[in-house]
Amino acid sequence: MKGFFQLISSQDLIGLLDNFHPLNPEPVPLRESLHRTLAQDITAPEPLPPFTRSTMDGFAVRARDTFGCSESEPAILKVIGEVAMGESGRTAPLAPGQTCRIWTGGELPAKADAVVMVEFTTRLDDHTIEVFRPVAPGENVIQRGEDYEQATVVLPQGRQLRPQDLGVLAGLGIMEVPVFRRPVAAIISTGDELVDIDQQPGPGKIRDINSTTLAALVEECGGIPFPLGIIEDDLDSMHQACCRALNIPADLVLISGGSSVGRRDFTLKVLEQLAGTELLAHGVSIRPGKPTILARRDNVALFGLPGHVGSAIVVFHLFVRPLLRRYSGIATGSGMQRIKAVTAEQIPSAIGREEYVRVSIKRGENGTSSLAAPIYGKSGLLHPLVSADGLLVVGRDVEGLDKGELSEVILFP
Amino acid sequence: MKGFFQLISSQDLIGLLDNFHPLNPEPVPLRESLHRTLAQDITAPEPLPPFTRSTMDGFAVRARDTFGCSESEPAILKVIGEVAMGESGRTAPLAPGQTCRIWTGGELPAKADAVVMVEFTTRLDDHTIEVFRPVAPGENVIQRGEDYEQATVVLPQGRQLRPQDLGVLAGLGIMEVPVFRRPVAAIISTGDELVDIDQQPGPGKIRDINSTTLAALVEECGGIPFPLGIIEDDLDSMHQACCRALNIPADLVLISGGSSVGRRDFTLKVLEQLAGTELLAHGVSIRPGKPTILARRDNVALFGLPGHVGSAIVVFHLFVRPLLRRYSGIATGSGMQRIKAVTAEQIPSAIGREEYVRVSIKRGENGTSSLAAPIYGKSGLLHPLVSADGLLVVGRDVEGLDKGELSEVILFP
Repeated sequence: MKGFFQLISSQDLIGLLDNFHPLNPEPVPLRESLHRTLAQDITAPEPLPPFTRSTMDGFAVRARDTFGCSESEPAILKVIGEVAMGESGRTAPLAPGQTCRIWTGGELPAKADAVVMVEFTTRLDDHTIEVFRPVAPGENVIQRGEDYEQATVVLPQGRQLRPQDLGVLAGLGIMEVPVFRRPVAAIISTGDELVDIDQQPGPGKIRDINSTTLAALVEECGGIPFPLGIIEDDLDSMHQACCRALNIPADLVLISGGSSVGRRDFTLKVLEQLAGTELLAHGVSIRPGKPTILARRDNVALFGLPGHVGSAIVVFHLFVRPLLRRYSGIATGSGMQRIKAVTAEQIPSAIGREEYVRVSIKRGENGTSSLAAPIYGKSGLLHPLVSADGLLVVGRDVEGLDKGELSEVILFP
Repeated sequence: MKGFFQLISSQDLIGLLDNFHPLNPEPVPLRESLHRTLAQDITAPEPLPPFTRSTMDGFAVRARDTFGCSESEPAILKVIGEVAMGESGRTAPLAPGQTCRIWTGGELPAKADAVVMVEFTTRLDDHTIEVFRPVAPGENVIQRGEDYEQATVVLPQGRQLRPQDLGVLAGLGIMEVPVFRRPVAAIISTGDELVDIDQQPGPGKIRDINSTTLAALVEECGGIPFPLGIIEDDLDSMHQACCRALNIPADLVLISGGSSVGRRDFTLKVLEQLAGTELLAHGVSIRPGKPTILARRDNVALFGLPGHVGSAIVVFHLFVRPLLRRYSGIATGSGMQRIKAVTAEQIPSAIGREEYVRVSIKRGENGTSSLAAPIYGKSGLLHPLVSADGLLVVGRDVEGLDKGELSEVILFP
């Protein structure tokens, strides 16, 4: 029963994710679209703003009427009215020498081309003001369409929407937004030693930690976790669980445990026997995380993850996270922040595999480098993960890092 | 009607947030607790793991039985059985010279203190193996309580929960988590020129951009937005809207527009007249964002924000965001990433106020600095915000930044 891995590099496994493509678009209400990804370009159905507006409280003027004015020689203008907020300013065109009271956001009257701030005026009487600072045409004004001309692309396909983007869509009256569907990730925990987290474990039993952890990881990158619970360590039960996952339908199946090559490791065999499923990888030259399986059934990815939660988290961040982003229409990468940090001590490694070492980060101040201190501990333990801020990467062609060496750290989100 | 600001510094305004304290704790189901903040220390109700486990597929042994063995002189051990997964290993204590088949995660038999990986054994017959590499006591084993001893603090109060933290809680069977309540933020847009975003604006009207933008900003930092819609620019309507907000009950009231000192700026007066409300600040020496108001009614913060969305966003990130985090129990700060970047061109500013300049960031590669290019545009416009990656800070005591100067940039989340 003992088999062997066909190890590939992490870069090659990431390359295999190109086999999968973004999910179908769906329309969502604007208010639910934060951080979703646009499935098509959004163009402006109308100019924004829809009319020329004042950016100040003051007086709408024909700019040339103010040219050359000063404190000693103010321009005298006739106040012919006020543009009430929310009313059209177009009903009162200004003749030369005329002005109109206006408020921030108000529509400029016809023939007005600038606004004088109220601070630079003096009221002589109810119908007359003095202006003692000139304005240029367009000053204190936002032109019709200055933000977005009609039919221009305001937000491109693939854009992950931020609060200000939702503001633009609101301004244009776009109430429904075409975004890529959120991926549904079925989560299967295998292991006869596992009990549900609401159970008191009997002798030899332990609560299922991976389902909760993986569900939270999926949620954190915008996916919808669908935990299927604990599945017995046998071929039939696991096959049935995979079928249930595909019937949800899940876009992604995460099976933790049983991905290695031991007698009790059924994941590989289950995926090999699953109809229409192609095995893409079994084994990655990383540590932890070597026993990683990737299979494909049309656009559905099936991952075998290591049973140790510490290893499963590394594999998730490196491979599952970029795939979830890919499904969601986000161009590339894991979206995790990478920083440079100096190692706090020597970190041994081995040629031929990449190591992902849990580290705590002490941020450098005043231009000094951040310090990365490795947190050692067996991959079955949780506390090193709880203390860690991220993963330090030791390349596959180096034997280790010296103390004080500058290295790359992937920060946990 | 014209008044004056009493400008305070941004640091002083941030200091005023100390007037507010975290919201009451509430229990939430474990699966809904991601990114929430612990309202109390979590201690381990039992040791984790609850028993001593193997971390490998192999043979449980008394380590001393393997001391000195080698390929040429293997130790010969008698196989007395197998620890089936999920069954107690304690029923089969090992006598000297005995071993027991065990799987990853299995409970060690009594008297066993290490596991030999199956790779380092040869099966002679059904009851006998050779071991050709010695193991130390504790090797390939996780001790009972090695992750967390009973009654130790596993996660401290104030911790914002990450996926691995949820894993620990799952492992300990903690199904309900005490976290600080999420702040409810009432959102009021003022302005007679505004129409709801599902309306076609008539002459002089424009859609309400700020409600949607502020709601998304609140959501982005874990708050619950509660938009109250567009309120007319008059004292009575605004007073009623504030009362409605307090009756929700909101923990925070955001009023955009009308926070300046013009004839149509009612926010200050409304807050001054609101029973039990204390005005903490009116005016901050920043640009944009000068007309910012902060008032307090017990633990409820009432913010007057500038009406221009670009200014409102700056004020939100600088002051509202840290307050929402404070309400949520997260210790301090805005939680926004700050980076150093070199200015792509000269940036003029003025002594006596901090400037927050929208910039796009071109990430430096191979150790070179990131480049920050200012995106100019009036604060009533959205497109500079849509293009921007963050805000470059120009300190209040400098007249500007030279091209190529190293400066601080707050990245948008």
